[in-house]
Amino acid sequence: MTSLRDVAERAGVAVSTASAALNGTRPVAAATRRRVERAATELGYRPNVLARGLQSKRTRILALLFPAPRSGFGLTEMQFATGAAEAASELGYHLLLSPESADPIEELRHLTGLGLVDGVLLMEVGLDDERPAFLAGSGVPFAMIGRTREPGETDYADIDFAATARDAVAHVAGLGHRKLAFFNLSEDTHAARYGPAIRAGAEFERAAREAGLAYVGGYRPGSAEDGGKAFEDLVGAHPDVTALAVMDDHAAVGVIAAVARHGRRIPEDLTLLLVLSSARVAGMFHPRLTTLEPPSAELGRLGARMLIDRLQEESQGGPQRRLLPCRLVVGDSSAPPREGGTW
Amino acid sequence: MTSLRDVAERAGVAVSTASAALNGTRPVAAATRRRVERAATELGYRPNVLARGLQSKRTRILALLFPAPRSGFGLTEMQFATGAAEAASELGYHLLLSPESADPIEELRHLTGLGLVDGVLLMEVGLDDERPAFLAGSGVPFAMIGRTREPGETDYADIDFAATARDAVAHVAGLGHRKLAFFNLSEDTHAARYGPAIRAGAEFERAAREAGLAYVGGYRPGSAEDGGKAFEDLVGAHPDVTALAVMDDHAAVGVIAAVARHGRRIPEDLTLLLVLSSARVAGMFHPRLTTLEPPSAELGRLGARMLIDRLQEESQGGPQRRLLPCRLVVGDSSAPPREGGTW
Repeated sequence: MTSLRDVAERAGVAVSTASAALNGTRPVAAATRRRVERAATELGYRPNVLARGLQSKRTRILALLFPAPRSGFGLTEMQFATGAAEAASELGYHLLLSPESADPIEELRHLTGLGLVDGVLLMEVGLDDERPAFLAGSGVPFAMIGRTREPGETDYADIDFAATARDAVAHVAGLGHRKLAFFNLSEDTHAARYGPAIRAGAEFERAAREAGLAYVGGYRPGSAEDGGKAFEDLVGAHPDVTALAVMDDHAAVGVIAAVARHGRRIPEDLTLLLVLSSARVAGMFHPRLTTLEPPSAELGRLGARMLIDRLQEESQGGPQRRLLPCRLVVGDSSAPPREGGTW
Repeated sequence: MTSLRDVAERAGVAVSTASAALNGTRPVAAATRRRVERAATELGYRPNVLARGLQSKRTRILALLFPAPRSGFGLTEMQFATGAAEAASELGYHLLLSPESADPIEELRHLTGLGLVDGVLLMEVGLDDERPAFLAGSGVPFAMIGRTREPGETDYADIDFAATARDAVAHVAGLGHRKLAFFNLSEDTHAARYGPAIRAGAEFERAAREAGLAYVGGYRPGSAEDGGKAFEDLVGAHPDVTALAVMDDHAAVGVIAAVARHGRRIPEDLTLLLVLSSARVAGMFHPRLTTLEPPSAELGRLGARMLIDRLQEESQGGPQRRLLPCRLVVGDSSAPPREGGTW
């Protein structure tokens, strides 16, 4: 049997360094880690993660609970997962992608009962989500990407909707617009109590008021067809609106078609912003839309790091709370309002 | 200490059923599984996956090697992962999402050396990918979503490009088109030796020839700007082209803008097809584009199932090879060619 000492000797490092390199218990320079791994392979040494896990009661495995993709799923949700997996990997952890069934609490009971994972990362967190209370009650360490209405002592990383709305409003106010409309996420594609919709709606209204802009809210189109109808409604009731922020990509498609039917143009007759869409998606529109791009990979990374901090007891204090704003990426759909133009 | 017998008694099932329900060693009706899990929770019984893994030398964990997202990454790649995770979960396995670094072989050496995973699932497989040879040499069970130039004995699930091209060509030929152009994936965003680009190019050319259609290939625009330029080039050299299939979403944006600059319309003057894009993405274009949607989740599911079959030695025969065609979703960009129209 090859011992860890043999591996350390062949790699020319201390036994503690060889152990850290193979077990990921503390950071080791990449070149050193590779040398140790090569020595282990050459000597046929197989560290056994299971035996180690039995000893330490730690598996260094985290589970990301991944809801069944709904129609609105895209790049953002994938980047939560890849960001979390990357951060975990850098810190010597592994990330399980655990699909959620119709009964997430049963699923959690099953998953945490297996003794397989050290902690759980939640995403798509509802305002009244029951998963955090279950996990807290079970004593399973966890963190959230997103947050409930009252996150209490739970660690979370979420979008800073207040800062995002302020940035969006400052952008359109800076161009000289005096009235902003906001199309929120639809209640069909997203649960009515889905946090981002509630928070974005409230924060856009507040930011517009604070900046002295007139504001029109209350629309929630979830398809191209509904987006077009909502736009006709909007300009019928508010012919002086010159700027519109839309949270749903498909609704934006309908808005653009409706603008064209009026014989009008973007951005000359309407400044159009996408909210919570990637610049990649915004670049598929013509013209390329200004967007507020969510910091998805960063939120995934932060969530994993918070959870690992907690597991390693490096943070024993109060809850870790991090809010990151969306990034404003100015496209070709932003311009000053036309003088005296009405719909 | 609560024993498995206690759990079985409380749940009113045989010990072997309780074991199967908690260990996932064979399928158990969902209602029974839930009853056993509830009994286990109530009695404080904790099956230990690690102790079980040590005994059986199996962890029931698979790793999906997930490459660093490149610009072209989207829904398709996410659906490989979620499909694989779902299939694994249904069969009592867990899926690790393992991000790949710059050196995938070192990464694999590290990952498989840990003793953590029973098998590996590869995606984004290059024609001359070196990972399959490494895994075969290491004796680690694996399967591929995609395939190398010569997959040999390896299990794989991939897109059926021949059937996909035939379906696309039959669609445009059925509308009465006589000449089809094809814009392939760009060499910038995809490695030159990326299988889908090579196979799609060859199969579209072959399918067009077999259907008696004139064919124009060789274009590989990877951005909206390049898509527009390629289109100008195309109609300059082939003013009689009436149908175009495009593999890159952003290139399609440029094509649509170029058509508008000519004062022409889709689909009246050009039938435009997206290839390898989801209907969701195709629905963001105006008009909604006809698309050949990849069976991404199905391929992810198939890959995981093949690997698990192999691990459970249910398939000891020759390699498992499954090819699935893209699904033709007809949008508003398909129409018969205009009589005698040229560019």
